[in-house]
Amino acid sequence: MKDITLKEIASKLGISITTVSKALKNYPDVSEKTKKAVVELAQKLHYTPNSFAVNLRTKESKTIGLIIPEVMHHFFSNIINAIIDEAEKNEYLVIILQSNETLALEKKQVELLINKRVDGILMSLSNESNNDDHIKEIIERNIPFVMFDKISKLSKCSKVIINDQKAAFNAVQHLIDSGCKKIAHIRGPLNPQNAIDRFIGYKKALEKNNIPFDSKLVYTCENVTFQEGVDFAKQIIEEHPDVDGIFAITDLVAVGVLSHFNDNNIKIPEQVAVIGFSNWFMSQVLTPKLSTVDQPSHLMGVEAFNLLLEEMHCHKEGTTFTPRTIELETNTIIRESSMRIR
Amino acid sequence: MKDITLKEIASKLGISITTVSKALKNYPDVSEKTKKAVVELAQKLHYTPNSFAVNLRTKESKTIGLIIPEVMHHFFSNIINAIIDEAEKNEYLVIILQSNETLALEKKQVELLINKRVDGILMSLSNESNNDDHIKEIIERNIPFVMFDKISKLSKCSKVIINDQKAAFNAVQHLIDSGCKKIAHIRGPLNPQNAIDRFIGYKKALEKNNIPFDSKLVYTCENVTFQEGVDFAKQIIEEHPDVDGIFAITDLVAVGVLSHFNDNNIKIPEQVAVIGFSNWFMSQVLTPKLSTVDQPSHLMGVEAFNLLLEEMHCHKEGTTFTPRTIELETNTIIRESSMRIR
Repeated sequence: MKDITLKEIASKLGISITTVSKALKNYPDVSEKTKKAVVELAQKLHYTPNSFAVNLRTKESKTIGLIIPEVMHHFFSNIINAIIDEAEKNEYLVIILQSNETLALEKKQVELLINKRVDGILMSLSNESNNDDHIKEIIERNIPFVMFDKISKLSKCSKVIINDQKAAFNAVQHLIDSGCKKIAHIRGPLNPQNAIDRFIGYKKALEKNNIPFDSKLVYTCENVTFQEGVDFAKQIIEEHPDVDGIFAITDLVAVGVLSHFNDNNIKIPEQVAVIGFSNWFMSQVLTPKLSTVDQPSHLMGVEAFNLLLEEMHCHKEGTTFTPRTIELETNTIIRESSMRIR
Repeated sequence: MKDITLKEIASKLGISITTVSKALKNYPDVSEKTKKAVVELAQKLHYTPNSFAVNLRTKESKTIGLIIPEVMHHFFSNIINAIIDEAEKNEYLVIILQSNETLALEKKQVELLINKRVDGILMSLSNESNNDDHIKEIIERNIPFVMFDKISKLSKCSKVIINDQKAAFNAVQHLIDSGCKKIAHIRGPLNPQNAIDRFIGYKKALEKNNIPFDSKLVYTCENVTFQEGVDFAKQIIEEHPDVDGIFAITDLVAVGVLSHFNDNNIKIPEQVAVIGFSNWFMSQVLTPKLSTVDQPSHLMGVEAFNLLLEEMHCHKEGTTFTPRTIELETNTIIRESSMRIR
């Protein structure tokens, strides 16, 4: 494509470049006749104003970067959906990158976004990341920045989170209230804050109910997959046939558990009650329908974008922005997989 | 954030701007000592080379635009996943926009991407779109452009598609082979090419097997949702209690059908066999497991990006690129929901 310039339009019409520019901006000191001629020719030649990513005058790119661990997770696609809709309303474009849960890729992507001069960055950390240098770099450079869901507690930036400890506590308390006496936990990897917090919530619920904690009942996912749910379900029943409740780090893993139990005629919830986390769409259409913790993913995306927008606004105006943390409410959703008759 | 310039580095070190620029580019005619001093100061000051979206020399933005109808559909999240991974490998960033199935938003988004000077555009059309002016505009402007999945047949650009007619024909033929004699079709909206083609495939399979086509057995989705599946399942059984097979436009709708039948004790596949389309992850974990058509979403994303990459390359080199259409293979996946004993 050959780019049409103001100069070419000016030359074709025999007027000055300044007049062409003014005509396109609808300045009052250009005659209507000239404006009409300029606009018509510009349209005919497919003239596009030269809009760089960074507007030289306002220093804004009207583009933000979004780094998430994994696009395909239902939870994250919900968040993307909310963020790009909010961005659209506010005339921002969103560059989306996925870290595939690796620190190396995440670091590279932060660098790319900084070089691209995005106006702000939204990020949910990979399983390998914490308060690493690339995070500090964003903050030191004073680039508007909001972390959501998977965050590092120490980073000095805005955050949108849920209370994972409390949510996990409530989920496990529900299993105990339903009569479960020996509850296994399929936890997430050791590093991410939300996996740590859900594990702590599980432990606290046992403690509160005078059920001794047994580390052998804790199984650790590496990649938090459906298949790990299948495999751990098998292992749990072989190693501890008297387990009567399972709390899984996320619905995808819980669905693996359900799948293995269904295929092997292990009755849910009669023999083992199961509860997941996140409230994926599919949880409500499974047999049995899966109990879970409702995580407000859409709202999380909306809040994260709007916090960023506020910070970008302060940044542009040169006013001070003090980072905030927004904690969203969760709910325990009780469905067939944990409805035991006591 | 205050932007550090070459001038400031030069002034602080008491050397010329040219020397700073050369030092950062590792030119041989700058001493190692000077290079070291420049690089260290640049790092300390968080200097970033001024990288606009459009590189003034190469005229590339290294950014592409991706417009899809709906991020949250499992099929599209798979495609996004593939496209951003391929883009990453080739050092392109991806701006993602969702049209929410509306023509108006899609038109606006095309204009945004053109103004943003993206190097290429990937698009799957909204349900309302066809060979409209905004599509023609992309092509007339000679912007590298690939349509995938939901395309307009008349547009002169590259396309990555499946053979929807053939895939639907095979799905319905499978229901007939399983003994179904009265098959209803829950179709997609009237405009999109893939909904039209799947409907034609359904009709052709009936014809081939001497089963009279009955338009009363065709139900048309407006929004292709789970709830429409639930509602049409109810309507079908009320209006035609002898229907023994249902072919649904997509798995999400088929899951709605399963959900209604499960809740109302209508036996699948004994009373009604059900087959969907797309092979969403959840289809394999439902009870009964859902038969479907496997649509190679990941491969579709990979092929679409690589076709675009080829066109962007030709565009950059000034060589001619002839649009191509890639048709990907599909497979009928037979699971419990259609395994009838004849």
